[in-house]
Formats: sequence, structure tokens, C-alpha cells
Amino acid sequence: MSLAIDVVGGKWKMHLMWVLAEGPVRFGQIRRKLDGVSEKVLAENLRQLEASGIVHRELYAEVPPRVEYSLTPLGLTLNDALAALETWGDQHREELAGRLQP
Amino acid sequence: MSLAIDVVGGKWKMHLMWVLAEGPVRFGQIRRKLDGVSEKVLAENLRQLEASGIVHRELYAEVPPRVEYSLTPLGLTLNDALAALETWGDQHREELAGRLQP
Repeated sequence: MSLAIDVVGGKWKMHLMWVLAEGPVRFGQIRRKLDGVSEKVLAENLRQLEASGIVHRELYAEVPPRVEYSLTPLGLTLNDALAALETWGDQHREELAGRLQP
Repeated sequence: MSLAIDVVGGKWKMHLMWVLAEGPVRFGQIRRKLDGVSEKVLAENLRQLEASGIVHRELYAEVPPRVEYSLTPLGLTLNDALAALETWGDQHREELAGRLQP
């Protein structure tokens, strides 16, 4: 388990994987979807996922320059593994509702 | 995804699931296996997992009293879902090694 935790552990990385799975996104788009994340923390998490080979950062030399983040092939395999967790949440939605703190 | 993240998001919960999957354990045993967690943070994480219906806390009325933590049936299903992540880590161990920060 510990390797996967090293990669997606922490408060934001699983949320981030979820947003990135929808396709290439810009920094501002990600930030709007991750309610409450600071610019600094988001940038740090993206850098860490890039260093792990999970996220690809593409710089388009336009004016102004555009940067898009997406999952690498390795990131896509991680996303598949995370799908089991999503299914679990869906399957136990009623059981969990009301138990989770607001 | 968000329901599962609500349950196991954060720095320690996935580690905790991993330790609890091995069977009923006492607080001190868990703490020794989760290197670096404080008593306060571990207690809080256990309480949250108990509130989510993932962890069962059993008090044995011995002298001194003994408390053991284990996964509930719901917790066992979550553990199964997490197994895909463990497999992913094993399958990509070489690819990840060296990339992850120490």
C-alpha cells in the first residue's frame, strides 16, 4: 500500500486526480473545482504529481502563455485503480450519508 | 469519488486502514506502525473512522482495561476497494522508485 499512499496521500491529491481525469485543464480551472485550496498548495501538489510521473505539464507558447495539466499514461493507470474507491463510495452512499461530518 | 475521499482522505487514514486490515490492534500497536503520528492525531483519525462506520472500537473490561480497534464489515469492503491501489503500487514499483521524494 505504502507506494500508492506516497503518491496520492494527503488532503488534495485524490481530489486532484479526480479533476485531472476529465482531461487537460488549466491551473485556474483546477483551483475553481478544488474548493478551498490555496494557489501555493495546489502548485506544490501538481509539482509533486509531476515529479511522480503522474501529471504532465504542457506549456503552449502563446501570448499570453498557456499551461495545461493532464494525466500521463502512468497517471491513467492510477486513475483506474482509484475507480474502485469511487465505486465503493457510490455503493455505500446511503450507509455513509448522515455518518460523515459536514 | 468525493465520498471515498471524505472517508479516507488526509495524511493518515489510508495508512491506518492498512494497519487495521491485519486484524484487531491496540492503540499503542497502531502508533508504533504509523511512524511519526502524534497521539492526538491518531485518536482523532480513529474517532473519525469510527464515526464513518469503518472502524469498530471494542473495550474489554479487564484490569487494566484493554481497547482494540478493528475494521467493521463496511470497513472490510473499503479495504477491498483500496486493494486496487496497493496492486497499482506493486505493479509500478520500479517506475516509481527514484521518482518519489525521500
